[in-house]
Amino acid sequence: MTDLQIARNVRLKPITEIAEKLGVPTDSLEPYGKYKAKMPVSLIDSEKLAQSNLILVSAISPTPAGEGKTTMSIGLTEGLNRLGKKATVVLREPSLGPVFGIKGGATGGGYSQVLPMEDINLHFTGDFAAIEKAHNLLSALIDNNIQSKTASLGLDPRTISWKRVIDMNDRSLRHIIVGLGGTSSGIPRETGFDITAASEIMAILCLAENLSDLKKRLGNIFVGYTFDRQPIYVRDLKAEGAMAALLKQAIQPNLVQTMEGNPAIIHGGPFANIAQGTNSVIATRMGMTFSDFTVTEAGFGFDLGAEKFFDIKCQSAGLSPKAVVLTTTVRALKYHGGASLDALTIPDVDALKNGLPNLEKHVENIKRFNVTPIIAVNQFTSDTEAEFDVLRSAAEKMGVAIAIANVWGKGGEGALDLASKVVEIVAETTEPFTPLYDWESPVKEKIETIATKIYGAEHVDYSYQAKRDLKKIQDLGLEKLAICIAKTQKSLSDNPKLLGRPKDFIITVREIEIAAGAGFLIPITGSIMRMPGLPAHPASERIDIDDDGNISGLF
Amino acid sequence: MTDLQIARNVRLKPITEIAEKLGVPTDSLEPYGKYKAKMPVSLIDSEKLAQSNLILVSAISPTPAGEGKTTMSIGLTEGLNRLGKKATVVLREPSLGPVFGIKGGATGGGYSQVLPMEDINLHFTGDFAAIEKAHNLLSALIDNNIQSKTASLGLDPRTISWKRVIDMNDRSLRHIIVGLGGTSSGIPRETGFDITAASEIMAILCLAENLSDLKKRLGNIFVGYTFDRQPIYVRDLKAEGAMAALLKQAIQPNLVQTMEGNPAIIHGGPFANIAQGTNSVIATRMGMTFSDFTVTEAGFGFDLGAEKFFDIKCQSAGLSPKAVVLTTTVRALKYHGGASLDALTIPDVDALKNGLPNLEKHVENIKRFNVTPIIAVNQFTSDTEAEFDVLRSAAEKMGVAIAIANVWGKGGEGALDLASKVVEIVAETTEPFTPLYDWESPVKEKIETIATKIYGAEHVDYSYQAKRDLKKIQDLGLEKLAICIAKTQKSLSDNPKLLGRPKDFIITVREIEIAAGAGFLIPITGSIMRMPGLPAHPASERIDIDDDGNISGLF
Repeated sequence: MTDLQIARNVRLKPITEIAEKLGVPTDSLEPYGKYKAKMPVSLIDSEKLAQSNLILVSAISPTPAGEGKTTMSIGLTEGLNRLGKKATVVLREPSLGPVFGIKGGATGGGYSQVLPMEDINLHFTGDFAAIEKAHNLLSALIDNNIQSKTASLGLDPRTISWKRVIDMNDRSLRHIIVGLGGTSSGIPRETGFDITAASEIMAILCLAENLSDLKKRLGNIFVGYTFDRQPIYVRDLKAEGAMAALLKQAIQPNLVQTMEGNPAIIHGGPFANIAQGTNSVIATRMGMTFSDFTVTEAGFGFDLGAEKFFDIKCQSAGLSPKAVVLTTTVRALKYHGGASLDALTIPDVDALKNGLPNLEKHVENIKRFNVTPIIAVNQFTSDTEAEFDVLRSAAEKMGVAIAIANVWGKGGEGALDLASKVVEIVAETTEPFTPLYDWESPVKEKIETIATKIYGAEHVDYSYQAKRDLKKIQDLGLEKLAICIAKTQKSLSDNPKLLGRPKDFIITVREIEIAAGAGFLIPITGSIMRMPGLPAHPASERIDIDDDGNISGLF
Repeated sequence: MTDLQIARNVRLKPITEIAEKLGVPTDSLEPYGKYKAKMPVSLIDSEKLAQSNLILVSAISPTPAGEGKTTMSIGLTEGLNRLGKKATVVLREPSLGPVFGIKGGATGGGYSQVLPMEDINLHFTGDFAAIEKAHNLLSALIDNNIQSKTASLGLDPRTISWKRVIDMNDRSLRHIIVGLGGTSSGIPRETGFDITAASEIMAILCLAENLSDLKKRLGNIFVGYTFDRQPIYVRDLKAEGAMAALLKQAIQPNLVQTMEGNPAIIHGGPFANIAQGTNSVIATRMGMTFSDFTVTEAGFGFDLGAEKFFDIKCQSAGLSPKAVVLTTTVRALKYHGGASLDALTIPDVDALKNGLPNLEKHVENIKRFNVTPIIAVNQFTSDTEAEFDVLRSAAEKMGVAIAIANVWGKGGEGALDLASKVVEIVAETTEPFTPLYDWESPVKEKIETIATKIYGAEHVDYSYQAKRDLKKIQDLGLEKLAICIAKTQKSLSDNPKLLGRPKDFIITVREIEIAAGAGFLIPITGSIMRMPGLPAHPASERIDIDDDGNISGLF
């Protein structure tokens, strides 16, 4: 059965019932249909959330298919609820564009899914559309200001880094020329479209505390320079009020349910390379306000999403996870150990052993934040007991708990061992996490701390452009921002081909982007895809809807 | 007080209460927050809707500010309800882009508004966003197919008329070049963006009967030619299933309320020049299923929106209005009579008398459809009794009912006279309307019928391009489609400067576009704006939101 077929067999509970279970006053909800609802930000209670146990689900360096963090997060939440704990899973929203490309939905899999999966994958409650509109309103205002005879700020079009966004895999929009067609249709210039998830506004929405903080951050977005080298921010265009008005509903987290009828909060979806890669501060706080255990995930491997989760999101919002669940698969470790992508379902204890250093490095990295890791093996049908034994003894050697979790095949029942081990670790955790670096440190020091301590690099090289960018950051007075390194997820290094635990490598920073609204700097290492394309036969060819509104072909 | 301030003072009823009043089973609704809901298409009942009285609100040739059809439609509905009739107003959804330009909202005005006005003006229930996504998915699939080595249909990029859309006033996107950046980023070609309301998918959604009709129409969209001159339709790209899946919610009409707590259904918003300019067939049928009187409006003047309402929408959907309310203002008639735009608030009986021929022509046009007109004078504070007397005696001379309606200042109370006159006319109407032309007639005959009989033209000229387009239409076998003339709304002619009742003029068709999915041909006369720009100081500069989510600056 496909994920959609499994999902369709579940009888959904009304969202009011899920809210009641959580203890959310149902008349405070904004329903979106019968099975989705927005939760007003005012429900967040700082005293109650301080009592909640936050669990971060991360992963080893993933294969191209991903190792199932979302599925693991959902399964763990089901397991915790089966143990009688009041647990909520807090996740990112899927991006629409990739649904029509190759990958299908992004709402878990098998018997660990969030529902209604068709709705969550298509439009959901309109958050991405609102972010897209707020972003593109700013784009239109920028080009309009350049065009204006009477209200121009004197912006130099060559210095504008703000592009447009669309939630669609559309490679033809990566590099475009706008403003053609004569004097009434703008000033010609080069620009392009990114996918909506890559918008700085996505990153901002997910770090904002409330509407006024959102507006302040929007106002701080750096737009470019005037012809006489004065910096222009969004506040200079008086755009942040209208942009925030467009985000009135989008700032509210969305309540849905898991397959076993437990609460799930899904909100925001920033990238884990050029942004912080995790759901919104507001959503996490909302989950923590109403649950004893709040399970959340961060994108890609621990080196990318989780480092940012700690050093950007947790530092910014005063959160502290009580445990990190490190999602691990036999297949990914075999890949790191030299097995080829098409041989990963063949039992291979040797390749698995060769791949263990990748796991070990991620475990060390978690401990560096003074948080206890637990290895969660996301079980596949091709896995063997002999392979599990290799993992169990590796974990024992590292002194780390391990659980084999069949969340895809069994839902919460497959995560009972994992859930009880998580409960044990949480009970023993009394100290908050230790940040990796101080935001007040110099920019290069912050970058080098991440590169050497987390990635395991020898040192960091800066290109000519990166050095110019460092100077620009200094001139703008933005050195105290957090660091959000854009790097391949495939390797701990910046070279996607170096699998396992690379050593003796250098991280090269090619340029450093400024996300002054989000509140971080983005050192770019390698090429970062911000606008995916479609395959020769896109998934859209198989997607259909019948007369009763039943969608097929999402998988 | 601004419209937004007046709106904010109204205590809204829960949408379930509005639904109960209509007789809609509340558990069939899909709520979107507390004050908006989607109505499943399955609620439409053909027997019940056949008993309902459909009233069309149209207007004389408008001034640039518009003459208040929406406000009149809402006020009339309030008036009918005050008379004890079960009446629902069915309107178009406002476009987001213009909200940030000059005009502010599009949800009525003064004491005749639909609520919640901020929500309806900003995102609403996501219909426009869904249409935009369905449109741009097709655009991405087209460029992807051109790029593909293995799945290419051989489309000639120079023949593709399908652009992209965005619901934003963004003049810099009118004319663009996409596909730059090398072989992995598409094939360079000229294209552009229209505003979302101009999408053929908007026209299709508003003519579709249900999901399968929608899908069939989407499949019929004409994309372009292959290099060996074979026509390519959307069905050849296998895109219509995924596009329809994206429109699953958008096809359902939206229930909201008027200021006096009466039901309002708001759905779809196609242009009235390049499209049919009226809300969806599904929304109109939904209103008629649940009400004795269903009040709806069609864009611009009677010559544009209402002609299309009758000849495209009513013919396609088997609807027949029982009366046409012709919205008329003293100021617009003075403008047609020679007064300048900045002198319209100065009493001027002579200019008014000079402007009457415009009113007379629209009255004649209504009668041509065998429907009874009633003149509704949308009262402004600057109007005088002497001016009203001129209108009353003109109406008497034409043998047409007239009512002065202060719907802006008094809501339903200001429309009581109008409402009772409408009830009288409806009671006397037994015959269905007479279409102006037969869809089976030759294309040129259909165009010429509209131009000579409705606009009052001498004859129709065709440019070289238009003649080529006629040939192309014939080759494609699309001659039996309806006609949707794109023309200025400012004049009955195709010259915006010819006010009043122009005579001895020629209509020039410059080209003829094909909307094979929507089911009509679009003869273009004059230049049609499909992507507006922003003014030097856009309305967005004044729009703001406070910490409690209260929006200001929409007016």
